[in-house]
Amino acid sequence: MTVNRPRGTRDFLPADTARRRYVESVMRNVVRNWGYSEIITPTFEHLDLFTLKSGEGIVGELYNFTDKGGREMTLRPELTAPVMRLYVNELQPFPKPLKLFYFENCFRYERPQKGRFREFWQFGVELIGSGKSDSDAEVIALADALLKAVGIQGDMKLGNLAVIRTLLKGLEPEIVSKVMRLVDKKEYAGLEALLEEIGAEEQLKSDLFRLIHLEGRYILPQVKEIVGNIPELVSFEKTLKLLDAYGVNYSLDFGIARGLDYYTGMVFEIYAEGLGAQKQVCGGGSYQLIQLFGGGDVPSTGFGIGFDRIMEICPLVPPAVKSLVLVSKPDTHLEAVKVATELRNYLPVQIDLMERNFKAQLTYANTINADYVVIVGEKELEAGKLTLRDMVSGEQELLTLKEIIEKVKGQQD
Amino acid sequence: MTVNRPRGTRDFLPADTARRRYVESVMRNVVRNWGYSEIITPTFEHLDLFTLKSGEGIVGELYNFTDKGGREMTLRPELTAPVMRLYVNELQPFPKPLKLFYFENCFRYERPQKGRFREFWQFGVELIGSGKSDSDAEVIALADALLKAVGIQGDMKLGNLAVIRTLLKGLEPEIVSKVMRLVDKKEYAGLEALLEEIGAEEQLKSDLFRLIHLEGRYILPQVKEIVGNIPELVSFEKTLKLLDAYGVNYSLDFGIARGLDYYTGMVFEIYAEGLGAQKQVCGGGSYQLIQLFGGGDVPSTGFGIGFDRIMEICPLVPPAVKSLVLVSKPDTHLEAVKVATELRNYLPVQIDLMERNFKAQLTYANTINADYVVIVGEKELEAGKLTLRDMVSGEQELLTLKEIIEKVKGQQD
Repeated sequence: MTVNRPRGTRDFLPADTARRRYVESVMRNVVRNWGYSEIITPTFEHLDLFTLKSGEGIVGELYNFTDKGGREMTLRPELTAPVMRLYVNELQPFPKPLKLFYFENCFRYERPQKGRFREFWQFGVELIGSGKSDSDAEVIALADALLKAVGIQGDMKLGNLAVIRTLLKGLEPEIVSKVMRLVDKKEYAGLEALLEEIGAEEQLKSDLFRLIHLEGRYILPQVKEIVGNIPELVSFEKTLKLLDAYGVNYSLDFGIARGLDYYTGMVFEIYAEGLGAQKQVCGGGSYQLIQLFGGGDVPSTGFGIGFDRIMEICPLVPPAVKSLVLVSKPDTHLEAVKVATELRNYLPVQIDLMERNFKAQLTYANTINADYVVIVGEKELEAGKLTLRDMVSGEQELLTLKEIIEKVKGQQD
Repeated sequence: MTVNRPRGTRDFLPADTARRRYVESVMRNVVRNWGYSEIITPTFEHLDLFTLKSGEGIVGELYNFTDKGGREMTLRPELTAPVMRLYVNELQPFPKPLKLFYFENCFRYERPQKGRFREFWQFGVELIGSGKSDSDAEVIALADALLKAVGIQGDMKLGNLAVIRTLLKGLEPEIVSKVMRLVDKKEYAGLEALLEEIGAEEQLKSDLFRLIHLEGRYILPQVKEIVGNIPELVSFEKTLKLLDAYGVNYSLDFGIARGLDYYTGMVFEIYAEGLGAQKQVCGGGSYQLIQLFGGGDVPSTGFGIGFDRIMEICPLVPPAVKSLVLVSKPDTHLEAVKVATELRNYLPVQIDLMERNFKAQLTYANTINADYVVIVGEKELEAGKLTLRDMVSGEQELLTLKEIIEKVKGQQD
């Protein structure tokens, strides 16, 4: 009986996994140098955590289940809610700001399609305890630095929800939510119909459409014409100055709405070429969730990067590691085991496990594209040395173990 | 409303996570040098995969659920079955032997207790396509090397199921399974009762009890007295010679039964001190599962290491990384951002995100135990330099950016 992999999931074979781990390590180095610390949360959480954050509507997209104790659980669809839960449960006494990152798998039950999987990976950051322009700017600049480090030149779109909220402040909260969702999805026909239906003033309609169609780096004067120089824009301009100091390129777009009610001010999205319909590789902003989860009034800023999309377009390849295959005859095989044990303190080494003869061992070394073969024969053992054969040039040298380590290691550092 | 972490799971805070990632990286280095490649499989699998391998009895211990498409799924309880499935689905054409490793989380629904969690991590190896003494020896020696690399001196117990199976070969298969389970759990009273019940011969009873009570490095002559010099023992003795060459310490114990029917020959378990009742940190052996999953008659050998138990007793601590905090005044803050961006290509750097004044920034650097403070002030910028303050000695120096990088990096490599 053949059992298959669940629909919408993936197996990662060795070459793929090595590339993923390498890109992961590059991203880890970046966040480490920006002073962020990793945390790990459970793969499943109480269902409440996500319905509290995103509403009951999210349940249809979740891998939720009732556990054997009758509890409603779900595989996590994202990490922001778990990190906020962890903050409320365990990190409130720590000095602020808290700078956290995660790199974890998430799950959503949806029709699998190109570039969208039922199990997928998120690399993300949450900065907790500061709501200043500096924290907004650092988080944006870090997202930018992460993408640059993995060779992706993204297209950063930056906005602030305070602008559209100011414009809509005469409307009922549910109407504001509906408007935001339509703006977020760029459903302009639906938006017009909704404004018509609620009898919105002509001025509001024209201001709103003018606002969400403005785009570019220098649109703030026009935005101020529409909503005035509100305090949030003063703080937002400070963020932009900081981004210039960080060397971040961006364009402004006050039609970014992120679709969720808990974002409070700055929001951003990064798009990249080469991904087909699913161009967004990163999304984030400043938000307020901690009170909802039973903590204090603590501002937060964060983003999530879709690691699978990154892997589709990232040009990085792991550095080549020189590999050795030890080759021996039955008489010298135990000595070869000892040599392997010694060499493995320094280098990747393979040794015959199939009781192959000398020639078949050489063939195997060829098959797996070994860089070097080390021959452990009687002649070599008598001389207290080993033969190192370069499998590309075909050259052979009689060397000590130490000389082999130095020679091969010198080539891979 | 406060949402709590699911029962039996854990959150890992920054210090814990850093230690786990460090030990993980040490283990990754070891397996890489032994020539093993990582694979990643989905977190959930079809329930069939595990009932096929372990019987319907396992369902009570699983996190199984019906997905929205009506499929019976489960969070994986272990990785051997998924790796075998992956082999059958995708790796059969690859050159043998295939040397794979994984480091993943697993799930089991059981009463949480000290040292046992509902989500836990396994580091494991599967060597596919060789059933020789050499592959048995390499897998055992690798498990030993991994534990030594993380500072754990384990107590290795090694056996071979062929011995007890030879002794029991006159009995019905279900009786053999029952006997093996009782032997595995060291339930000797139950074993005696069972043998009584089935009317086993006195000779068999005394041979069996003699065999499972033998323990030590040099018990093979006595074992041969009981079962004769069967071919499996000849091959097993070759494995032991190889283990001597690898420098592995072990004691023999033919009462190791691993509790599961798919193990075929060599089996081993490693125990460690300091863990209370749950002393086993590693278990493995040679097994046959590929045919069951629809592949060919391919022998395999592997082990799993309980990473959470390793973390409880592992003495390794991550190497200290020197950290810098940049301190500036409002007038020089944008310059400090530029300095931070440059330094972050080389070193971990924090910069004020809270609009704190100069003194409060120094206090923060103290609070987080920064190794150095870099002062970006007007005096410094005029001189084209920066002040580096050693927070331990209190010494200050005026240095260029390049000198700071060299000085601090020199201390952490």
